[in-house]
Amino acid sequence: MTSSRPLKIVTLLGSLRQGSYNRIIANALPDLAPADVSITLLPTIGTFPHYDADVQAIGIPAEVSTMGDAIREADGVIIVTPEYNYSIPGVLKNAIDWFSRLPQQPFAGKPLAIQTASMGVIGGARAQYHLRQTLVFLDAIVLNKPEIMVGAVQNKVNADTLTLEDADTRKFIAGQLEAFAAFIRRVG
Amino acid sequence: MTSSRPLKIVTLLGSLRQGSYNRIIANALPDLAPADVSITLLPTIGTFPHYDADVQAIGIPAEVSTMGDAIREADGVIIVTPEYNYSIPGVLKNAIDWFSRLPQQPFAGKPLAIQTASMGVIGGARAQYHLRQTLVFLDAIVLNKPEIMVGAVQNKVNADTLTLEDADTRKFIAGQLEAFAAFIRRVG
Amino acid sequence: MTSSRPLKIVTLLGSLRQGSYNRIIANALPDLAPADVSITLLPTIGTFPHYDADVQAIGIPAEVSTMGDAIREADGVIIVTPEYNYSIPGVLKNAIDWFSRLPQQPFAGKPLAIQTASMGVIGGARAQYHLRQTLVFLDAIVLNKPEIMVGAVQNKVNADTLTLEDADTRKFIAGQLEAFAAFIRRVG
Amino acid sequence: MTSSRPLKIVTLLGSLRQGSYNRIIANALPDLAPADVSITLLPTIGTFPHYDADVQAIGIPAEVSTMGDAIREADGVIIVTPEYNYSIPGVLKNAIDWFSRLPQQPFAGKPLAIQTASMGVIGGARAQYHLRQTLVFLDAIVLNKPEIMVGAVQNKVNADTLTLEDADTRKFIAGQLEAFAAFIRRVG
Repeated sequence: MTSSRPLKIVTLLGSLRQGSYNRIIANALPDLAPADVSITLLPTIGTFPHYDADVQAIGIPAEVSTMGDAIREADGVIIVTPEYNYSIPGVLKNAIDWFSRLPQQPFAGKPLAIQTASMGVIGGARAQYHLRQTLVFLDAIVLNKPEIMVGAVQNKVNADTLTLEDADTRKFIAGQLEAFAAFIRRVG
Repeated sequence: MTSSRPLKIVTLLGSLRQGSYNRIIANALPDLAPADVSITLLPTIGTFPHYDADVQAIGIPAEVSTMGDAIREADGVIIVTPEYNYSIPGVLKNAIDWFSRLPQQPFAGKPLAIQTASMGVIGGARAQYHLRQTLVFLDAIVLNKPEIMVGAVQNKVNADTLTLEDADTRKFIAGQLEAFAAFIRRVG
Repeated sequence: MTSSRPLKIVTLLGSLRQGSYNRIIANALPDLAPADVSITLLPTIGTFPHYDADVQAIGIPAEVSTMGDAIREADGVIIVTPEYNYSIPGVLKNAIDWFSRLPQQPFAGKPLAIQTASMGVIGGARAQYHLRQTLVFLDAIVLNKPEIMVGAVQNKVNADTLTLEDADTRKFIAGQLEAFAAFIRRVG
Repeated sequence: MTSSRPLKIVTLLGSLRQGSYNRIIANALPDLAPADVSITLLPTIGTFPHYDADVQAIGIPAEVSTMGDAIREADGVIIVTPEYNYSIPGVLKNAIDWFSRLPQQPFAGKPLAIQTASMGVIGGARAQYHLRQTLVFLDAIVLNKPEIMVGAVQNKVNADTLTLEDADTRKFIAGQLEAFAAFIRRVG
């Protein structure tokens, strides 16, 4: 048993907006993590070009490779993302499309957790199952429960300080992080 | 009844690669269309920036608005796309994410047909149902049948001349175009 | 234009429980329907055997054929159903599996609307998209909007009188019925 | 490491037809299993009543409880099923709906693999992702790869002897069973 093994987790953010609700959640994660678990936000995916096999033929962009390395070296990945049009944001899917082309595909066998937030009541649920289908192909090992779908997120953050204030949401997320750490230690 | 009403259809291509198999299919469509149906390929979606609400706040990019106009003015839209990682290509989803923000959302009430092609046997089926879920939100009226999922597409095109040569595939696609024209005339 | 054509709609209920929240909603529909629209609840699907091609080979059960006739003769169908285990209830899917084998498949070209209700906040959304995927194969013409997903349904009904009391929910549903009637008159 | 731990796997069959292609595949599994892995076909799910909370209130049927025990005691489960109408067969979903109500839900934390077969080229892929979504709720740990989707299954079996004869298919399936055994030993 290695239940106290320290874990390094990276967060992949699916929104580019500076004041993004999902960014606020991603920024809250380090504080909500269990002991011995570090959580680091990856750089923006907004600098990736659109995936194009002709561009790939010239060479995979350095920012893709570098972020792929960071994912590969992490013990687990958390994807924090809004839902756009009942599915994965294009910009996030584009990042995944690039990662999937890396020589050592970084999601293969990687423990992964999903968090979505939206202003509606459904909290991004529709995006989660599309993401899970994509992650079957990438061979990530995705945590089932608890699912984090933050509905009415605008009422749960402080838009001035850009902090996640809602106590219940903080508790739900902390619960997922604890379950995810245990999951990584079991299957990772 | 207006069964002989001439129809203008536009094609939205989900791949950027110059030699893309899906581009070859998109290019074949005008020849396969029924009488009185014109089919025009829209410009590339590769020039759109990644969707970002901060960019939107400054102003929706002109290329998005222009393409949105072309979709709005068409009698129907055909999406021709590969499947990436068991879902919609990020670059195509990104274009849709932009279109969804236009003041008069151009897919609303618009008849739409889907064609996918891939090198595997499944022919992009997984991407089609994700696309359909997105199109529920956009309120497009999507043709059910016949579904066009071209498997092993590399064996059905001439990679030198970039033409769709397989007679059966041409026939299936022509059949969908005929069904789509009738569908537009009924529901459009 | 035939905007005042009277319409006959039938409701297919996905739950067997006598006190089912979805049954309460189904029972509320006739009162919420627009003028000139009658809505009739179909008999229970609980009497259908499990679909089995060996049983089909002997003969499609009479209750399947009879209900298939009622669907075929209706101007539109409303499916009202709970979500079980993030998908369509088995009993409802079984009924659909039977209907799909009828000589004149009754959903082909049939306008259809979906309503789901659940005790959780998500209101059965996950079941709706699975149902929509099935209905692509059956070639139903499914209304996109408004989607009816009644969350926390236990707070919106009177469990003693088995009536739908929540005014907002009644209004949302009446809005869908009005949109559905217009949709039938346009595409049916 | 317990890589040589003997494993007991049970197979859940989604079709009732006696001559079912999926039954032929399920029957082939014991022969294709790696050393130290036993694979046993569970009894038919055709004897389960339709799920009905009123029936559940009287008592969960004995055949459900007994099969739930067998699943709980197994090291892993393989679901072998056709696709009906682009989704899970109703009869299989119904069995799952019952299992989900057992006091100790038998799929929780259980390693699980999926195999589908169909007469078309797509081999049941659409049913697999619906099943995976349901299994998120049930908290099964589902093998990602290799996916077994047997297309044109009628050409791969001997319909007289009811045996799986196609060498490639046998090899693919044996490969999944080997991957599944390793997966169980890692995550189970």
